[in-house]
This record gives sequence, structure tokens and C-alpha cells, in this order.
Amino acid sequence: MIKDTSESGKGKQQLLIKDIPEVQENSFLIRNTPVMQEHIQRKGRNNTLENQTAGTERNLTWHEMDITRAYREEQMGQKAAVIWFTGLSGSGKSTLANAFEQYLAAKGKHTMLLDGDNVRLGLNRDLGFSEKDRIENIRRIAETAKLMNDAGLIVLTSFISPFLRDRQTARQIIGDCFMEVYVSTPLEECERRDVKGLYQAARKGEIAEFTGITSAYEAPLQPQAVIDTSSRSIEACVAQLAAALGY
Amino acid sequence: MIKDTSESGKGKQQLLIKDIPEVQENSFLIRNTPVMQEHIQRKGRNNTLENQTAGTERNLTWHEMDITRAYREEQMGQKAAVIWFTGLSGSGKSTLANAFEQYLAAKGKHTMLLDGDNVRLGLNRDLGFSEKDRIENIRRIAETAKLMNDAGLIVLTSFISPFLRDRQTARQIIGDCFMEVYVSTPLEECERRDVKGLYQAARKGEIAEFTGITSAYEAPLQPQAVIDTSSRSIEACVAQLAAALGY
Repeated sequence: MIKDTSESGKGKQQLLIKDIPEVQENSFLIRNTPVMQEHIQRKGRNNTLENQTAGTERNLTWHEMDITRAYREEQMGQKAAVIWFTGLSGSGKSTLANAFEQYLAAKGKHTMLLDGDNVRLGLNRDLGFSEKDRIENIRRIAETAKLMNDAGLIVLTSFISPFLRDRQTARQIIGDCFMEVYVSTPLEECERRDVKGLYQAARKGEIAEFTGITSAYEAPLQPQAVIDTSSRSIEACVAQLAAALGY
Repeated sequence: MIKDTSESGKGKQQLLIKDIPEVQENSFLIRNTPVMQEHIQRKGRNNTLENQTAGTERNLTWHEMDITRAYREEQMGQKAAVIWFTGLSGSGKSTLANAFEQYLAAKGKHTMLLDGDNVRLGLNRDLGFSEKDRIENIRRIAETAKLMNDAGLIVLTSFISPFLRDRQTARQIIGDCFMEVYVSTPLEECERRDVKGLYQAARKGEIAEFTGITSAYEAPLQPQAVIDTSSRSIEACVAQLAAALGY
């Protein structure tokens, strides 16, 4: 006895070929972009609909085209990417990610920021801070970022993500468009800021496995950018990052 | 001893206020949209940067603005939404969702389609088909769709999602922009199509708990649209759906 795997969608192409009507060419502007032409050529001419009706019902403004990642990127006028900010608590990851998102938005880019605020209280609300849950936390963030890439978006993620292996997993899931930004603000400066009072608590032994104090932070080996926020304005940091990532 | 909750981002506003530089007004076009004006008014004037540097580093094209859901919707020229397709295996959910996405794309809308193809093999690859996993499957899809809404996108989801309670959970997570589309193609027609051979296998007892045969399908009580794909062209179905949802 096998389990119902119908949600896995393995038969979707079959269904598409069976049910999608014939292509009507040259009737919508969007078809004339290079990406669309490619799609049209790829899809071919052999689609027919069993119960197809003709005439008035065909006078619509949409037609057969795959809405792919390439299509959505073209539509948004950008290449999808993930900009993965990693660094100690208090290093300025979220500040920098927010500021860089503002910079990108000002350039007309379509972005999304994933951070503790919107992930830990939603998608990953069932996860705690055990090693297993920490790994799953990063995996889901990476998978979600990838889906957003498929939607054409430039995704910024802001998580301590202290371990090389977890970030490597994220890179494997996301692929070539994964860009790692190491917010390298020294521990002393992070601890001096201590905006959440967490370092003080960690020094008192009130927090278990606090990154930088009682748990390791593994710095990236080949990050696309290294930004130290301790001695410069946020604008200078954003300018450095924009240059490093080519935005 | 408490656990490190620094990823939860509770202190982010604090960090923002401390680190984001003063606003420079009237220097970027994007500020002149109504949404941006509202943001500017809301954010106020009290942000200073401790280590702020003046002069040349300030000559950038971005400035303080919250990149919110409202901002992204304005940028994309649309209202974010989730169009949740539910129905039996073989009812034409994915075909209709695909076609409707094409229709929306042709109207310049920014969309994303979540289905078995891109969810079961990625984000939810750790989930099976037990009741617990089925519930978690729908919960994560809803949370991901919500994050995509926050990015401004119109999200289409295509899953059998046979149980009222699970879809109610999705509606609670997603909020007012949740639109339920019942693909009501009768069981006999779904079974006649049997594009994946699953109905035949279910009838032979080779599949456990197959929706419509050995497991219940609970039809929506108040769907925004009811579409029967059995006797009409896909164009007619798309036209009906567009009218029902106001696209």
C-alpha cells in the first residue's frame, strides 16, 4: 500500500498539457519580450483541450506562458538574489539590512527582509533553540528565501546564523545567487552597545550558549562583503556594501 | 537561566532608533508618493547616530523609510492577496491556478504560485502525510504566503487542503486578503480524468486515505468563487474567477 502523494504535483505537467488550450499568438504585448519568446518556443504547439469551446470565451488578455523565475525577474527588472547577513548579536546586521533594503528600494528594486521579527513569530514559531531546531530554523529560512527568489525578489536575511555548516546548507538550497555579508563589528563593540542587555545577562551566566560569549561564532571564509559598523556611518556601510555586491 | 532569544528581534526598534541617521528630506522622488509621505510623518525626527560622520558620505540616493507591506504594494501597484485553490485531486486546481497566474501576469500583476512541486520538495520536505504533518504542511504554506504578502505579492496556492479546519487556520494566519476558491469539479469527472492513476489505485485499495474515496473532502462553506472545470474551457473558468475576485 502506497501513500497518497498527489500533493507532490508530480503529474502536473500531464495535467497542463491536457487542459491548457491552444496558443493564440501575437495577441498580447508581453509575448514580445525576449523571455516570453523563449517560453513560447519552448512550449510548442501540441496542447489541446478536450472540452474546448470556441468563440467568445477566447477573447481574453492572457494566454499560455510559463510564469517562471526568469519571467518574474524580467517583469521586475532585476535578478533575484539572497543577501545573507551574518554576525554577532548587536553587530548591526538588522540595521544594515534595513538600510540596505531602503537603498535597494530607492533604486526601484523589489525586496523582502526576513528576520527574527517576521520568521520566529510566524513560520518558525514551533522551533526553539536546540541544535536540531537551530538547523531547521536556518533551513526553512533558506527554503523560504528560495521561493521568494522564484518570485523574482531580492531577499535580505538578518540572523546571527553563527555556524558555517548551517550557512553552507543555506547556500546549497539557494544556489548561485546566495551572497554572504559578514557584519564583522568586533565583540567588544557589540558588547558595549548591548542594546538588548543580552551580553550583560550572558556574562552573569543567565543565558546559555550565547554567541560570542559561551558559544562559538564561525566567521565566513569567503564572504562577498565584510562590513564593520563600529566606526562609520550607516551610509558609509551601505555604500561599501553596494559597491561590493554590485548594486 | 534564560535562553538566548536574540534572534527574535524584540530589540530591533531600539537598535534602529539608535543607529539610523537623521532624515534628509525632499532629496528622493520616491518620498513624494502618498505612502511615503505617511511613513515620513510617522517616523518623526528623533533619530541620531552616535558615530555619525557628516559630509561626503551622506551623498547617497537612499534615506530613511520603512519598507513596509504598504510600501511594497504601492511599489508593485497592487494589493497583496492569497488566492487559495482547494478541491479534489484531478479537479483542475493547478491548471486553473496556473492559468489564473498567467492572466494576472498579463495584467502586470506580481504573483507567486505555491504548489506541491515547489513546497513538498523544498520547505516541507521533512513532512509526511500523517495528520500532524498535514496540519503543519498547511500552516507553513500559509505562513510563507503571508510573508510573500508582506513582500507585496499576490500568492496563488494549489493544494487539495481537504479539511475545513486547516483552511480556517490558513485564513487566520493570512488575514482579510485570504480568498478561497473551491474547484468543485465532481468526483466522477476527477476520477474519469485520473491523470495520475491515483483514483484507480485508491479503488484497488493501494492508497490509504485518498481524498474523495476513503477520506473526506470538506467543501468550503463560503468560498469567494466556485469553479467547475468539467464542462467549460479554461478561458471560461479564468473569466469567471476574474469576475468573482474582482481582477
